[in-house]
This record gives sequence, C-alpha cells and structure tokens, in this order.
Amino acid sequence: MREGMNIILVRKEELNEGRVILTDHRAGHIVTVLRSAIGDFVRIGVVNGLRGTGRVCSLSCGSPYSVELAVELDGLAASVPPIDLLLALPRPIMLKRILSQAAALGFGSITLINANRVEKSFWEAGLLQEASYTPHLLHGLEQAVDTRLPEVRTYSRFKPFIEDVLPALMQDYSHCLVAHPAGDRTLKEVLIGKPGRILLAVGPEGGWVDYEVQRFLGLGFSAFTMGERILKVDTAVISLHGRVSALLDQA
Amino acid sequence: MREGMNIILVRKEELNEGRVILTDHRAGHIVTVLRSAIGDFVRIGVVNGLRGTGRVCSLSCGSPYSVELAVELDGLAASVPPIDLLLALPRPIMLKRILSQAAALGFGSITLINANRVEKSFWEAGLLQEASYTPHLLHGLEQAVDTRLPEVRTYSRFKPFIEDVLPALMQDYSHCLVAHPAGDRTLKEVLIGKPGRILLAVGPEGGWVDYEVQRFLGLGFSAFTMGERILKVDTAVISLHGRVSALLDQA
Repeated sequence: MREGMNIILVRKEELNEGRVILTDHRAGHIVTVLRSAIGDFVRIGVVNGLRGTGRVCSLSCGSPYSVELAVELDGLAASVPPIDLLLALPRPIMLKRILSQAAALGFGSITLINANRVEKSFWEAGLLQEASYTPHLLHGLEQAVDTRLPEVRTYSRFKPFIEDVLPALMQDYSHCLVAHPAGDRTLKEVLIGKPGRILLAVGPEGGWVDYEVQRFLGLGFSAFTMGERILKVDTAVISLHGRVSALLDQA
Repeated sequence: MREGMNIILVRKEELNEGRVILTDHRAGHIVTVLRSAIGDFVRIGVVNGLRGTGRVCSLSCGSPYSVELAVELDGLAASVPPIDLLLALPRPIMLKRILSQAAALGFGSITLINANRVEKSFWEAGLLQEASYTPHLLHGLEQAVDTRLPEVRTYSRFKPFIEDVLPALMQDYSHCLVAHPAGDRTLKEVLIGKPGRILLAVGPEGGWVDYEVQRFLGLGFSAFTMGERILKVDTAVISLHGRVSALLDQA
C-alpha cells in the first residue's frame, strides 16, 4: 500500500470506452484505504492528461482486489511548472527520494548530469531506466494530486553537456541559477527582472568543484548563496524550490 | 556510522581542560571516514556553544575506536534562526525526519501541538522524550555545521494551548502564519512590513480542521496558500522554511 495516494492515476492505454479495471495496488487502495462502495466517486487523473472522477461500478475483494471505474474527465490539464532542475546525479537511494519529492513539488523537467563528485557507479544504477524511475515520479504526483510527469533526461559526461547541450537549452530560460556556498549574492538579488522559466542547478554531495562553477558562470548562470549551512541534496532541492517559488510569488 | 557528519559535536561536560576523549561513533567517523592522523585538525563544535577545531592528539583503532582531541574554540556562537515552527504532532517516523531536517535548516524552536487529525497514539511515542529526540536534532546540526539545538516544546491538548499559551507566545513575533490550502493570499502577500521573528504553523497529514484554522485566525494569524498541491508534512516544512527564508532574504 502506498502512503499518500491522493489521486488514482491511470495511463491513457488503460482506459477502454471511459472505463478502467484496476487490479493492482490502486485497487487495494480504493478497497482498503478509501473503503469505497459501489456508486462512490474517487478522484482520478490520466497521466500527462486531465483530472476527473471515477465512479466505482464493481469491486471484488478477492485476491487480487479488482475495481472497475467509470471515468469522467472534467478537470483542466495541469500547466507546466515554471522551474526546471539541473541536478548532479545523486546516489540511487537519494535520487528515488528526490524524484518523488520533485514530482510532488512540481518541476517541469529534471536533467541529471555528471560532475566531478558524482561517483561513476551511480551511472550504472538500474534506476536510470525509465521503467524504473517512473514509479517514483508517479508516487509524487499521487501525493500532490497532479498528473503531469516531469521530463527526465540524463547526460553522463559533463563537458559535452556543458559545451554542446546546455547553451541551446539555456535559451528557454529567463534565469539560470546555480546554488553555491561561495556566492555573495542572495537568491532575491539574482532573481531580478521579469521572470520566465527558471533553470536551477544543484550540485552533488560535497558540491560542485570550482571548474564546474566557472563553466556555469561562463555560460551566463548567476551564482547565489543559501548561507553557510551544508544541506543534504534532497533537502536542498526542496528548500530551493520553495525559495524560488516564493520569489516568483507562486502559490 | 552517520552520513553527513560535517562537524564533530561535543557536549560541554565532555570537555576537560580543553581536551575531549571520544569513544563512540564520532571516534569511528574520525578514524574511518575522515581518516585523520595524529596532528590533523577536525572541525568541532560545542552543543549550544562555539565552533572551532580539534587537533588529534592520540587515536586508537582498537575496539572501540578512541580519539583524543585538543580543542580550540574560535568560531562565533550561532545566532538564533528567525523562524520558529508550530507543528501538529506527526507520526514518529515522520517526526524523526522533520527534527533532523529542521535542525539542519535552522529553526529557533519547534513547538509540537495536538490537532484533530493527530492520532492519539502519537503522543505515546518514546521519541517525545528529550533523550530520544535530541540525537535526531544533533544529526541535523552535524549535517549543517551548526551547534545550536532548536528548543522543543510539546502541548498535548489543543484548546488549552490556544487559549492559555499561544497568545503570550505570539508577542515574540512580527508575523504568525498558517499554511492553509483554502487561503487566497500568497506568502508574499501576508509577509509584509518589517519582519522580525516568524512563527509558522504547519498542520497534520490531512490538514487542520476548520475550527483549528478559525482559532488561529481569531488570534491574529495570517493564512496563506501554497497552492493546490498536497505535500507530505516533511516536504511542506522544508519548502515553507525555504519560502519564508527567501522572502526574508536570508542567505
């Protein structure tokens, strides 16, 4: 059973003439947590699609649980959050937590890159396969009642990413920001002018090395400081998302 | 071994004429993670006191590890962070995570109170004993290189707290804020005027009930919305700390 399932998410392919039959943990959630009866409505959403309600048409408490829902989609499609994350690949157990929390908070995309202090073995993690990381993103969406999966991209070599990919990517943003303890400006001081989309770079455990910060600054990133405290990467990602959101005045 | 020990914290009572002998996980950390040799310096701090350096005078790799440090305190005492947390008591596993992350981020105090959606059994948790929760706070301080333990207080009855304790407590703050999905103002809209200390109320899993919100508002709290997303309490605490910090322009 998953904690924090505040919306039942289904894939478009699972819908058949407005109905869906669930036989996995989602059915278990409807039967044992929501304790829904026939005729009850549950909050439902289509992954990367609309939200709406599902009316329970039939349910079976056998093993496995089975629930059939008649789906009515009436909500609006979720808009793309204005903040994207550029993250030095963390260790798999940390990445799982970050993916789920980032999806809950709302990032448009999550770009995982290499850095000097990223251990080579992290790139061999099975978690980097789409089939493996998507459940963690879905978990975050279920918590936050969202339907839009953040895009995830990976670049396992720092220099080719910085030289060949990042310059074009930066065109999409009004502000490209890198958190760095040695910065002498606060976030408020660098997030000036009319903000559009924000790209937020967060380093690995131990931080970016000087060379990496210099490459970001050379491309036009603004460095800012969060103060002297050393935070775990997952704490830093959430705190930074909050800081940027507050200054964008995003509810 | 603890992950993220970026400072060795010692209690004042452990110091003896400027020296301290460690034989617990801290000694293990110095020997096996920092791999310090005699004459090396490690970052050290006294709980609720100053920071400085410890010079390794002797070490033994026997079981248990033993390390003697000559302590030189030269750092400044940590200042009291400007944000205090008023939190509906979460389940113990969640509280552990929050205590550690709250200490890492920096809250002046953490006041745990009852609410309608707090399960009664949470109040029986051994974790509410000082000896039991302090290690989680220390863990956060070790991560963040801080020495100041947030004060922790508990009030297991909502109404007496609201009526007899909170009004006097509120005198210490320029802003008392309650996050509430139904609020129609953003944090930026309620955090106006010259900020002093901020008291931030965060509800339980499932949120405050209307009666509770009305009591806060009746005392002069301002409600603000973080948007429609439902966040886990630990994610919300970190995100809110980030939001308030950004608007206070706290690095």
